[in-house]
Amino acid sequence: MLFQRVSKGVVTIASGSWTKVTCKCCFTDTVRPLLVIELNKDVQLETKQWIISKIEAPANKQGAQLLAHPGEDDDGDMILVAAPSCTLLRNAEAVGLSKPYRDGTMLAFSYPDRANFKNADNVEELLTLAEQQYISKKELDDLKAGTNESIPGCSKDKGSLYPGEPIFQKLEKSGIVKTMYPLHDKEKLSAFSKQWYSQFNSGVQPLDYIHSYFGGTVAFYFSFLGFYNLSLQLPAVLGAVLYFLPWNSLNGQVLLAIFNVVWSTVFLELWKRRSAELAYGWGTLLLNSTFEEPRPNYWGTMGHNPVTKRWEPYFPSAERKKRIWFVSTPVVCAFLWLTVMGMVAYFYLEWCVKDYYSREPSWLAMPLLYLPSVLHILYVDFMNHVYKTVAHMLTEWENHRVESDFQKHYTLKVLVFSFINCFAVLFYIAFYKQDLELLRKRLVSLLIVSQIINQVTEALVPYLLERFLPSQGTKQREADPHIDKFRAQGCQPEYPGLFAEYIELFVQFGYLSLFSCVYPLTAALLFLNNVTEIRTDALKICKLFRKPFVAPAANIGIWQTAFEALGFVSVISNCWLILISPQVTGYCQENGVSFRHALLCTIALEHVLIILKVVIAFVIPDLPKWVRIKVAQLEFRSRQALRTVA
Amino acid sequence: MLFQRVSKGVVTIASGSWTKVTCKCCFTDTVRPLLVIELNKDVQLETKQWIISKIEAPANKQGAQLLAHPGEDDDGDMILVAAPSCTLLRNAEAVGLSKPYRDGTMLAFSYPDRANFKNADNVEELLTLAEQQYISKKELDDLKAGTNESIPGCSKDKGSLYPGEPIFQKLEKSGIVKTMYPLHDKEKLSAFSKQWYSQFNSGVQPLDYIHSYFGGTVAFYFSFLGFYNLSLQLPAVLGAVLYFLPWNSLNGQVLLAIFNVVWSTVFLELWKRRSAELAYGWGTLLLNSTFEEPRPNYWGTMGHNPVTKRWEPYFPSAERKKRIWFVSTPVVCAFLWLTVMGMVAYFYLEWCVKDYYSREPSWLAMPLLYLPSVLHILYVDFMNHVYKTVAHMLTEWENHRVESDFQKHYTLKVLVFSFINCFAVLFYIAFYKQDLELLRKRLVSLLIVSQIINQVTEALVPYLLERFLPSQGTKQREADPHIDKFRAQGCQPEYPGLFAEYIELFVQFGYLSLFSCVYPLTAALLFLNNVTEIRTDALKICKLFRKPFVAPAANIGIWQTAFEALGFVSVISNCWLILISPQVTGYCQENGVSFRHALLCTIALEHVLIILKVVIAFVIPDLPKWVRIKVAQLEFRSRQALRTVA
Repeated sequence: MLFQRVSKGVVTIASGSWTKVTCKCCFTDTVRPLLVIELNKDVQLETKQWIISKIEAPANKQGAQLLAHPGEDDDGDMILVAAPSCTLLRNAEAVGLSKPYRDGTMLAFSYPDRANFKNADNVEELLTLAEQQYISKKELDDLKAGTNESIPGCSKDKGSLYPGEPIFQKLEKSGIVKTMYPLHDKEKLSAFSKQWYSQFNSGVQPLDYIHSYFGGTVAFYFSFLGFYNLSLQLPAVLGAVLYFLPWNSLNGQVLLAIFNVVWSTVFLELWKRRSAELAYGWGTLLLNSTFEEPRPNYWGTMGHNPVTKRWEPYFPSAERKKRIWFVSTPVVCAFLWLTVMGMVAYFYLEWCVKDYYSREPSWLAMPLLYLPSVLHILYVDFMNHVYKTVAHMLTEWENHRVESDFQKHYTLKVLVFSFINCFAVLFYIAFYKQDLELLRKRLVSLLIVSQIINQVTEALVPYLLERFLPSQGTKQREADPHIDKFRAQGCQPEYPGLFAEYIELFVQFGYLSLFSCVYPLTAALLFLNNVTEIRTDALKICKLFRKPFVAPAANIGIWQTAFEALGFVSVISNCWLILISPQVTGYCQENGVSFRHALLCTIALEHVLIILKVVIAFVIPDLPKWVRIKVAQLEFRSRQALRTVA
Repeated sequence: MLFQRVSKGVVTIASGSWTKVTCKCCFTDTVRPLLVIELNKDVQLETKQWIISKIEAPANKQGAQLLAHPGEDDDGDMILVAAPSCTLLRNAEAVGLSKPYRDGTMLAFSYPDRANFKNADNVEELLTLAEQQYISKKELDDLKAGTNESIPGCSKDKGSLYPGEPIFQKLEKSGIVKTMYPLHDKEKLSAFSKQWYSQFNSGVQPLDYIHSYFGGTVAFYFSFLGFYNLSLQLPAVLGAVLYFLPWNSLNGQVLLAIFNVVWSTVFLELWKRRSAELAYGWGTLLLNSTFEEPRPNYWGTMGHNPVTKRWEPYFPSAERKKRIWFVSTPVVCAFLWLTVMGMVAYFYLEWCVKDYYSREPSWLAMPLLYLPSVLHILYVDFMNHVYKTVAHMLTEWENHRVESDFQKHYTLKVLVFSFINCFAVLFYIAFYKQDLELLRKRLVSLLIVSQIINQVTEALVPYLLERFLPSQGTKQREADPHIDKFRAQGCQPEYPGLFAEYIELFVQFGYLSLFSCVYPLTAALLFLNNVTEIRTDALKICKLFRKPFVAPAANIGIWQTAFEALGFVSVISNCWLILISPQVTGYCQENGVSFRHALLCTIALEHVLIILKVVIAFVIPDLPKWVRIKVAQLEFRSRQALRTVA
């Protein structure tokens, strides 16, 4: 039998059928497959063998130093990949992962010093599953063609490789490799997934499990979501108290506006600390900056890369800047203009309809009253979809060399648009119409509508799918149940990534910090929404999608900045809402304070709040004291080591 | 004869009289002394010999691996220190200095790979004089006492050392070492100093010479000053045009206000780029962060340092925080209050005097009119001096462990006070009195008075001193002219550092960016002032003071932030000055625009300008493209090297 089960319930394969390891220390009886490469059906055996030979070749022969297994199923279109411990450990050092040293502190892993790390003899304990899969993927991505190499078994046109071309990018582009995915480990997954997504009473997520199973960025998303929801309890309780107290709910508006500004600042600062604690515990606080390879879709005329001096596709950055400034920026502005125009049209239409209804009220005309809102919501949704596609195409066309630049430009485009698209109407009502009642109604309807949509699309549909559709795992062929299980994972849809999830959080954080002072129940509603959000997101990643490759991460990256930027805008909106609040206007009328003075006071308050924000950010250290001491210890240690060597 | 002159005009000493080098590669015929340690007159020979033995001992015997020369002058209270090339090169790597590689690019110096660096065989060419002196000083500072060691020839009380105590800190504290200073190299100095401080026509400073002779922070100060003055030409010309054009000088106020905000942002962004270029050229762009030793004045009960685990004086940071928040902060606030009260008293007194004069005008009472101003200027000056002393004492008492923390807290204290002390009156006139004419008069008098004081104290006095006082170098005793020259350098006053110079620039940058739109000639006056400022500062450091120890630097550090913060405040003050400008108020009256609308427009403008600032800072990259490519090359190279080693 090809597969064996060993003690810990991990699916492994007898090492006989794998390619051979090159060093003795890596030899084991059984090997655990980490990822699957699915080839196209019509790929020649010759090509498959060449790929396997590249995977198994040692580093000095420009190979990936991994183990390959030809799959041996009926179609022969699958390669299983595993990693010998030497490859994993060397790369753990290159990535800059920290691991528990024998004295218990986290220390940047060092291959030569590996014996002094805990679990040094058991790579399965030392490196998490996600790290092993990330490293294996990275080794494959780093495979480069030699001089005068080409893919055998292919037409000359399709199989030609320039020296240094990333082989797997080429294989995917030319359709030889259909897809690659990391494998689930169902037993590991089931050890924490049930608790994670189905126990509605516990607020604590199994973060360490999530990190070790899914990897850095996913673990940070769920940590952030959990921490955010925990922090929401304070404004939720305060808001509910203000809302249900026997006096007018508007009384609390000034209090709540100032509270919101302070709360959002403190929350983001505390998250930075929490984030550093998590990153220290996960050994990712001091990751090495990596020299990124070009994106798969990067293209250009062949030329010498000014940095690496390699002969590769090269696209001049001046040309890219031209595209960004003279095409992308105007297109984005046009979309923003369309959004604003849509809003103006909505208000105009609503005014027309109301005007018509007031002149000729009838049962038949009643539904007309809802027409503008419905049209506008459809328009907003439509624009949202079109814009995302356009932004993606534009950013692709800007032809960024590395993935991180691509992500940065794409995120910026979508963030600016989401901000205008979601908040323009609210800003218009608050600043131009100055109609607090309308603002409150609009906010409530947005909160409730978005929640209903959210619950239905993100919770109910997946639940029903999961419950009533026949699980793909049951369609096993008897011959080789494991290969079939792997294949079933490949049939699942690809995980869409966390971008949309972060945008969702960004928008709800905006409702909360910008406008919630007019509707104190906002935080409570968001809290309830997020309780299910956590579970449905967890269900999605555990059950409904293919396991994604996830890079180690030290924080939530650009999203921290995005949320902090919202915090600054919230000062402006909250100050304005204070100025036009019934409390303040009433006070001014009673005491004969001119609008001019009220306005000057509000400006002063705005500046004080901004200074307060900066002071809070300055006073709360970004790292908790114990993490700072640990980091200082690490630095001191590495300096001592250097001195000793010198 | 003890001293020889060798070809390049460098004072060297025949190696016979020096302690011996431990490695062959460092042996030379003559040795060039780098720094002088002056001992107290009553120090025992035994103590002096012990110090010399510490200086010359190799690293494995906890020594500084330097060369010592007993001085051999009449008093025997001097030790000359030089450095063998191995010590210098090893430390150049530890500090993280970059040096030209054989292919011409700057590369982090590596001791094992030293043969591939340019000038590898000649340490005098490879390392600048300032770097050699900094490294030698650092080696001395890093000398630590072993277990059960004490200073011989001293009373037990005075000479006791705990294990790991920095020896030279103890020697200075106990008065055994009177002072230490790096030696001038008169020939090197005269090669560029004349051009630097006496040619009034040339605007270009010999920055590379300054960097190699004086070192990083000094070179960056003068580069910044030069770049700032160059950038001043644009507002100076624009201001002069606006001032001398036949229409009312106030016409340009709005234009100038907006120009000032944009100019100050662009200037600071361009300086960042210039600064990166300089740092790349000087090999200091990628300095290693160093683990700082405790300050000499740091004290505490003996305990285990949580980071290093060493047994040393330890002062809990909770106690320090208490001192900062419950003592320093209130004291600083009290001083700010006193300053503001002084200002209020000044305005009250002036009102009284004017009132009195208008009732009883007489020739005798005339001088009374000037009394409030004179009293206030004296008060401000007095407060300034007292505050600086108090701030220094407070920061000392806060007992920061490392020098950089001390500097940070001291700078922050002085900056906040300088801001209030210098600008409070102007803000009061602009925002509260809203009297543009008074603001202009006050600004002009401040500019002219401060320039006169500056020219007299910084230029005329030093010039006269230099010209007419007998140079100390002429009092040579015949016996040993070189030792006498060294001793003469020790008699010069210690260089006061760049703190006061930066504060001066900070204040004049404040006049310019905050208020200069009411007086367009400000920039031109400042430009003229700085033309002499550069020369007098140069004269001071070259001729009038002892040569300072200067650390390598990658930028101007905290001052960049301080200037940028002023830039943000300038948005507020400029917008306000636009609002109350005669242009705008005139326009509003003519066109019937209410103050309310003008105010709202100004607030909108303020927010637009702040966004503009942020966008400018975002759009102008911090590193010029060629430096970015070089840095990427460096990173790629070191990663390649790592891969090859692995």
